[in-house]
Amino acid sequence: MPHIPLQEHLPGIRGLAAFRPETGRPLYDLAEALLVGESPLSRAERETIAAFVSSRNECVFCTSSHAAAARHLHGENAHVVDAVLADYRSAPISDKLKALLTIAARVRDGGGRVVTDEHIAEARRHGATDRELHDTVLIAAAFSMFNRYVDGLASFTPSDPAVYKEMGRRMAEQGYAGRLSQIINGPSGDGR
Amino acid sequence: MPHIPLQEHLPGIRGLAAFRPETGRPLYDLAEALLVGESPLSRAERETIAAFVSSRNECVFCTSSHAAAARHLHGENAHVVDAVLADYRSAPISDKLKALLTIAARVRDGGGRVVTDEHIAEARRHGATDRELHDTVLIAAAFSMFNRYVDGLASFTPSDPAVYKEMGRRMAEQGYAGRLSQIINGPSGDGR
Repeated sequence: MPHIPLQEHLPGIRGLAAFRPETGRPLYDLAEALLVGESPLSRAERETIAAFVSSRNECVFCTSSHAAAARHLHGENAHVVDAVLADYRSAPISDKLKALLTIAARVRDGGGRVVTDEHIAEARRHGATDRELHDTVLIAAAFSMFNRYVDGLASFTPSDPAVYKEMGRRMAEQGYAGRLSQIINGPSGDGR
Repeated sequence: MPHIPLQEHLPGIRGLAAFRPETGRPLYDLAEALLVGESPLSRAERETIAAFVSSRNECVFCTSSHAAAARHLHGENAHVVDAVLADYRSAPISDKLKALLTIAARVRDGGGRVVTDEHIAEARRHGATDRELHDTVLIAAAFSMFNRYVDGLASFTPSDPAVYKEMGRRMAEQGYAGRLSQIINGPSGDGR
């Protein structure tokens, strides 16, 4: 049971955004800018980093939904997502993405200046740009927030994989910004 | 030195928002809604929670600036902020705020469902409402992001306490939302 009254048909972050739209709006805008907006990282790569960080944070809702979005975006290479979640160092991904995932893992760990000049140099050696470094760090930081928000209030976490598959398809196809008003004004009429 | 090219006159989150305004905007909007917008928690309490979480995350920039904002908002009770940072359990604050800070500390720790029904019951026993529980968890989660963003990219961190005192006064008096355009279009002309 959630720690505060949330609507059961709105799992995870969705119920929280409906509970408090004033904070839900910038949170959805952040997800849109970070995961859907213009970036040198592909949308599939960004959703994979989001799922990877969420997995290390043991957030079932965020891992399942963003992994599903990443699989949808990867198309016939959907297996790459599961390979990253199992062990990114041996996954069939570029050395650049491996170096960025190492940085994302350090950011997730937290606690002071854990991303060293050596981590950055390694990523740059494989072609990472300033914007790729920035976006990787902010995705890892943002999911360190989303994961804690969703689990800290014990929001509803579906267990049926089919629910996440559909959720991931919707996230991949529709993004985040437009979703919030649908959630708030959703099927129940008032969304609270 | 920061890991990406940031403007030296824009320390911490400010340089990062100027580097990438598309994500800076929702981040500043989130800070405004969470720390300045309507809440049953006072602005002084919210800035104190933000400084407390940042302190545990060892983020010097966020701790110093939000503690300064909290001291400004506490007025003649500014010493409360330092008492909370030193040991909140013995600080001269309400039992409700102590219970909320315990929840904030657990959210910061992260890793699954660390806020238990007992933590929530204890806070409710001291009068905490749904909205106070929600806002506490989201502040703790959001600073788990801001701290990692600021330190993960090694943004500029001033060491002069006077800089933070002035920064805290400005944050307390002007809030966050209006600050971003000043930062982006700031004294340097183009802000990038």
